[in-house]
Amino acid sequence: MTETIHNWENHGYLATYVNKNGCFANLRIYPHGLVLVDAQSSNDLNERGEETEQLLNKVEEKMKELFHRSIKRIKRLPVIMRGDAIDRYWPTADGRLVEYDIDEVVYDEESAYQNIKILHSKQFGNILILSGDVNLAESDLAYTQAIMGSGKEDYTDKEVLILGGGDGGILYEVVKMKPKMVTMVEIDQMVIDGCRKYMRKTCGDVLDNLKGECYQVLIEDCIPVLKRYAKEERMFDYVINDLTAVPISTSPEEDSTWEFLRMILDLSMRVLKPDGKYFSQGNCVNLTEALSLYEEQLGRLYCPVEFSKEVVCVPSYMELWVFYTIWKKKSDI
Amino acid sequence: MTETIHNWENHGYLATYVNKNGCFANLRIYPHGLVLVDAQSSNDLNERGEETEQLLNKVEEKMKELFHRSIKRIKRLPVIMRGDAIDRYWPTADGRLVEYDIDEVVYDEESAYQNIKILHSKQFGNILILSGDVNLAESDLAYTQAIMGSGKEDYTDKEVLILGGGDGGILYEVVKMKPKMVTMVEIDQMVIDGCRKYMRKTCGDVLDNLKGECYQVLIEDCIPVLKRYAKEERMFDYVINDLTAVPISTSPEEDSTWEFLRMILDLSMRVLKPDGKYFSQGNCVNLTEALSLYEEQLGRLYCPVEFSKEVVCVPSYMELWVFYTIWKKKSDI
Repeated sequence: MTETIHNWENHGYLATYVNKNGCFANLRIYPHGLVLVDAQSSNDLNERGEETEQLLNKVEEKMKELFHRSIKRIKRLPVIMRGDAIDRYWPTADGRLVEYDIDEVVYDEESAYQNIKILHSKQFGNILILSGDVNLAESDLAYTQAIMGSGKEDYTDKEVLILGGGDGGILYEVVKMKPKMVTMVEIDQMVIDGCRKYMRKTCGDVLDNLKGECYQVLIEDCIPVLKRYAKEERMFDYVINDLTAVPISTSPEEDSTWEFLRMILDLSMRVLKPDGKYFSQGNCVNLTEALSLYEEQLGRLYCPVEFSKEVVCVPSYMELWVFYTIWKKKSDI
Repeated sequence: MTETIHNWENHGYLATYVNKNGCFANLRIYPHGLVLVDAQSSNDLNERGEETEQLLNKVEEKMKELFHRSIKRIKRLPVIMRGDAIDRYWPTADGRLVEYDIDEVVYDEESAYQNIKILHSKQFGNILILSGDVNLAESDLAYTQAIMGSGKEDYTDKEVLILGGGDGGILYEVVKMKPKMVTMVEIDQMVIDGCRKYMRKTCGDVLDNLKGECYQVLIEDCIPVLKRYAKEERMFDYVINDLTAVPISTSPEEDSTWEFLRMILDLSMRVLKPDGKYFSQGNCVNLTEALSLYEEQLGRLYCPVEFSKEVVCVPSYMELWVFYTIWKKKSDI
């Protein structure tokens, strides 16, 4: 084993140990008493764990011996696995490191709009990840229920418009409730193709055809569709915005994400019946600034609106999520 | 900046860069094309993020330039913070690395039985962590409801025994339902003291007194209490086992955790009315082997039992959890 020592005058020591089989370790000692040990091994998944654990057990024992039980705290973090075909780290929307129990890459394609991954989680089933953003897992009926109004709405004989929703979850659940007509506008055919095949717990058979007795799926950008409907004065009882957190835009009109989000909101209100409801996911509960900015947009639409919000636990998200219900304000007369 | 290079014959290169302000970085290049960059800085929380991000941005740019867009995948993990007063990493029961949004240490004490921490999470509220094991957060009514039978039970006028349950969540919810009498047996007064003060969204005011109109809290090891009740033939409609995953034992009789778990199960069955129900948390859904072993124990009790299980999403756990309902098998006569 080769050892290299660096001595900072005010920042302690760094020792680097390199062994012949391609492993190395850093031992960092801070003047205030913090000791950090990082071991990097190049073994494959099965061997890696045990060997590293054994090394760290020895280091811990030795440290305890040297410091005569005066160590206040010892913490060992689980192994971080990098460079594998399977990537288990999909940080939360608020930027925290979380490891998923991914054991298989089911689908991984680049569409014209985004990277589409469907990864298998032991506990959550298949998870749809769009451009690195966890969208929905087969375990996440809670998401679909929340964005449909948490079981408080009656969709029977209603006109429903779904923006996005390519995983088919909302469409599948709404269709069960015998609506008059559901129109879903999804820009990315490849999301539908992937989900039809690998997210069947979420979408059932509803994506097998783009047209059913009481639904149609349009493979289009929702902006021109909304404009067309607004012009035709076609109105809906429910508009459900299930676009990705930062929506894909093919429209040149927006200056920023917020402009774009407001344009969708505005157009949606134009096709919403006076008694209609608009549902949307918001953001993770910790991004309070983004939530405030979103609520600010609601005050800047062509018509006055009111809103309520609900915090929901979506299993595969590993963070609480805010859902909005928005409706047109009744005039006081 | 000081640079040290190590060249393995078959395992690629390791370059270590050390700068004057106490930061260092490892650049590891594997022969098959994997490049790992680790940067360790000693700044405090606020500075740390930005500086490291800037450095990594530069490294990424340079790499892209050098490899002429032939890089297949780039992944940057969130900063890992070690040595802070606040520890944000509480791995799941199945051993995955997850970072919590902890921003305050509310309570941290060693009792005679365990380390008791109550940490504040921005989204989950206060979280009770016993000897490193996430027990319950203020957001986790789903846990309490699941271990009470998921809303399908009527506790009115019933005799209820709670084993453990020091956070007071079950006691608080059962008492609301006007039971005849609830007896809670918790070994650790200090858990009750901490939760009474800092987990009030969970326990309300129920832990303010150890005795109420329809409940009593015994600060005792549950094993002798169960034995006493069994001898006295005192019977309960519901026994709710809310002991920690690896229960604290002050009893010398058990050979192993499984023996101990079976002893508790056996004694619980002895104090359960013929039509009574026993509720317990099991384990995370991914630990299938532990769940099987638990179910095996159920076949080895003094009386034949049947069971059902339910998988529940407990917000602060970041993994799905299995809950058991167990009841005495009716004889066929």
